[in-house]
Amino acid sequence: MRISALAADAGLPVATVKYYLREGLLHAGTATSATQATYDAGHLRRLRLVRALLGPVGLSVQQARAVLQLVDEPGDDLYSTLGRAVSALPPAAAPPGDESDPYPRARAALTALGQVYDPDFPAVAQLEGALAAAESAGMPMSAERLAHYGRVLSDVAEFDLDRMPQEPRGAVEYTVLGTALYEPVLLALRRLAHQDAALRRLQRAE
Amino acid sequence: MRISALAADAGLPVATVKYYLREGLLHAGTATSATQATYDAGHLRRLRLVRALLGPVGLSVQQARAVLQLVDEPGDDLYSTLGRAVSALPPAAAPPGDESDPYPRARAALTALGQVYDPDFPAVAQLEGALAAAESAGMPMSAERLAHYGRVLSDVAEFDLDRMPQEPRGAVEYTVLGTALYEPVLLALRRLAHQDAALRRLQRAE
Repeated sequence: MRISALAADAGLPVATVKYYLREGLLHAGTATSATQATYDAGHLRRLRLVRALLGPVGLSVQQARAVLQLVDEPGDDLYSTLGRAVSALPPAAAPPGDESDPYPRARAALTALGQVYDPDFPAVAQLEGALAAAESAGMPMSAERLAHYGRVLSDVAEFDLDRMPQEPRGAVEYTVLGTALYEPVLLALRRLAHQDAALRRLQRAE
Repeated sequence: MRISALAADAGLPVATVKYYLREGLLHAGTATSATQATYDAGHLRRLRLVRALLGPVGLSVQQARAVLQLVDEPGDDLYSTLGRAVSALPPAAAPPGDESDPYPRARAALTALGQVYDPDFPAVAQLEGALAAAESAGMPMSAERLAHYGRVLSDVAEFDLDRMPQEPRGAVEYTVLGTALYEPVLLALRRLAHQDAALRRLQRAE
């Protein structure tokens, strides 16, 4: 298809598609003449991914380019590639302190959960910040709550990994989008579950 | 204690404490002379709450004041007060369309989960936006995933509600802080559970 048809199918202005081409976010079409090229379903699929990364996921063009490079060239060490891809997502990790134990709360929490603790993984800094904020507000995560949340989210993680595509490029794309796009779903569902559970308790009490 | 001791205990500059007093976020102390007042543990506790609302929770002074009013005067309808308190938290809900069915995806999802659907509750708009974003990225929430996440978060909600203080003011405070402060913990734990589960699978495969 022509670039105009591609843009129309993706629901984007032609100028935006040309901008993505210039920025290297979308691979070039197949030249059919000196001034024209043709695009296929692979381009449409990529446009949808680019739009998600720049839109709801909230990446800059530069960050999106880095993620797309990992999708395109996942390499042999898929575990490390997935880690790097998720690390590119917001929120940006706070830089580690130069102390010997920069994330004591996260380390203790992950140890209690029996999970791997890798201070280089940005979600560790994210967990440390979240635990510190709860603590300083006078609502520290109890060991009981941590164990419960941790068990529940391991259950979610197993579910998510069971459905990860085998093929490496698809696996990176699934991991990036599944991490970023389902997070707001999870938070909204928690708030709604609170509301639903509170209403049921109220009705039982009446 | 004097205001200087209160500020020191809260880890805040005296000027900040005076600002909270002027803005009505902190209740006045007991006057001991024309120019001095004394403060107690209740003030310290409130300061910690105010600091959390303006800091990690991310509210404006005006939003924090609205939440604090609900904490101070929860009224007789606690369910509605809790709903209003959570509604004051970010993210701000998109204004509802004026159509007859503004949140079709959220309505379908909650119906499938057997949960109450109340379009006036902002988390409904939040869920609608999250589901629409996943859909347009080509990663719609499957019925299976929705059922799984929904079940898991109902489990979290029951855990959270079981630990809600009976006393209304404490219940509002717990709900606001527990919603806002534990959300980043949940998201970090999901990312870390993914990493942990992926590593375990890799090790089993070797």
